Amino acid sequence: MNYDSFEAVYSKYFSFWSALSPVDRHFLCYHSTSVNYKKGVNIHDGDECTGVLIVKTGCLRLYIRSDEGREITLYRLFQGDMCMLSASCVLQSITFDVFVDAEEDSQCYLISGSAFAALSEREPAVKIFALEVAVSRFSDVMWVMQQILFMSFDRRLAIFLLDEISNTGSDTLKLTHEQIAKYMGSAREVVSRMLKYFSAEGITEVSRGGIKILDRKKLRELTL
Amino acid sequence: MNYDSFEAVYSKYFSFWSALSPVDRHFLCYHSTSVNYKKGVNIHDGDECTGVLIVKTGCLRLYIRSDEGREITLYRLFQGDMCMLSASCVLQSITFDVFVDAEEDSQCYLISGSAFAALSEREPAVKIFALEVAVSRFSDVMWVMQQILFMSFDRRLAIFLLDEISNTGSDTLKLTHEQIAKYMGSAREVVSRMLKYFSAEGITEVSRGGIKILDRKKLRELTL
Repeated sequence: MNYDSFEAVYSKYFSFWSALSPVDRHFLCYHSTSVNYKKGVNIHDGDECTGVLIVKTGCLRLYIRSDEGREITLYRLFQGDMCMLSASCVLQSITFDVFVDAEEDSQCYLISGSAFAALSEREPAVKIFALEVAVSRFSDVMWVMQQILFMSFDRRLAIFLLDEISNTGSDTLKLTHEQIAKYMGSAREVVSRMLKYFSAEGITEVSRGGIKILDRKKLRELTL
Repeated sequence: MNYDSFEAVYSKYFSFWSALSPVDRHFLCYHSTSVNYKKGVNIHDGDECTGVLIVKTGCLRLYIRSDEGREITLYRLFQGDMCMLSASCVLQSITFDVFVDAEEDSQCYLISGSAFAALSEREPAVKIFALEVAVSRFSDVMWVMQQILFMSFDRRLAIFLLDEISNTGSDTLKLTHEQIAKYMGSAREVVSRMLKYFSAEGITEVSRGGIKILDRKKLRELTL
């Protein structure tokens, strides 16, 4: 990609774009690349400064991981979403490690973390933008935390399944119990047990191919 | 308190103070009050805009609460600490509700949320300051989340007890099992069971008066 392509994209994404000098705009475009990630690949690992990511197509998953390898998904990034936590050098006050994987084949714009950090030091509007992106994710993470800590598992699983069929547009979810457990920060056994219960209630049907939702209404009632 | 007293305090706390105009300094002091909170009182409840709090003396506890009243302590604020999450009108992107209680008799400086918000809209340095305070707490909250979700309970309790004796400077903690459970986002039964185990190991001694730490070294080994 060349300067003009990045310029066209960034003028849409960055509220501070019009306030930047032509030199600074060029600086940011110069330190940008377009990157393709294969489904399943790890993009960001802990405390590296991978850079600022903007999703052009596909889907990224952001998660934390325990020493034993247990994962908890914090949120996913879809088209147009921006990832600031993958640029730990931009936000000094972020001291926790996150991981980012490509959940689908994804195409992203990647801005060098050190370039973005340098610009944010001399342009308050850029710094405010970066901090606001981070703080808004703080709210997402608190939501996940409350879900995990406060909500009963049947309700959480019902919400997860409804989100999935709404995201994919299909009544059949091609997910293993292991995958669901990973996304929900739970264990495979817990997911399997609850899906067995849902199936017994006529809400779902579990097969090798995935999980079919038979009764959306009942599922929705569980979320109330 | 009068203008000069606030001026003296704020010039220490706010990195942006010297960049403010005399008019803006006066504006912030004018919208400040000094407030005393009795131990146990609720200071901030959910989505109100109570204002920006600075702890002069005492200790505040910040927590989230489930519909059923279960509480999880996110962090505590000690002398000199600042609370930005109690001013939801300043940070639009914070969409979750927190609660703040006085854990000890506490004296605080309280700045009107709307005044701080107005100033942060016209002064980028103030906005950056507010966002950075919030983002740094993001890291604290992630730490709590990882503790609760990833760590075994014996380790968590050991860390909690060590923190407490280091904070209070005493080997005997005057806390009920119920209180510890609340602080740790756990259940009283779980705390009692683990303390019984610690006592059996000669690490603690539990009496009506509280919990006495007998073997710091063993306790510290549990945290590794």
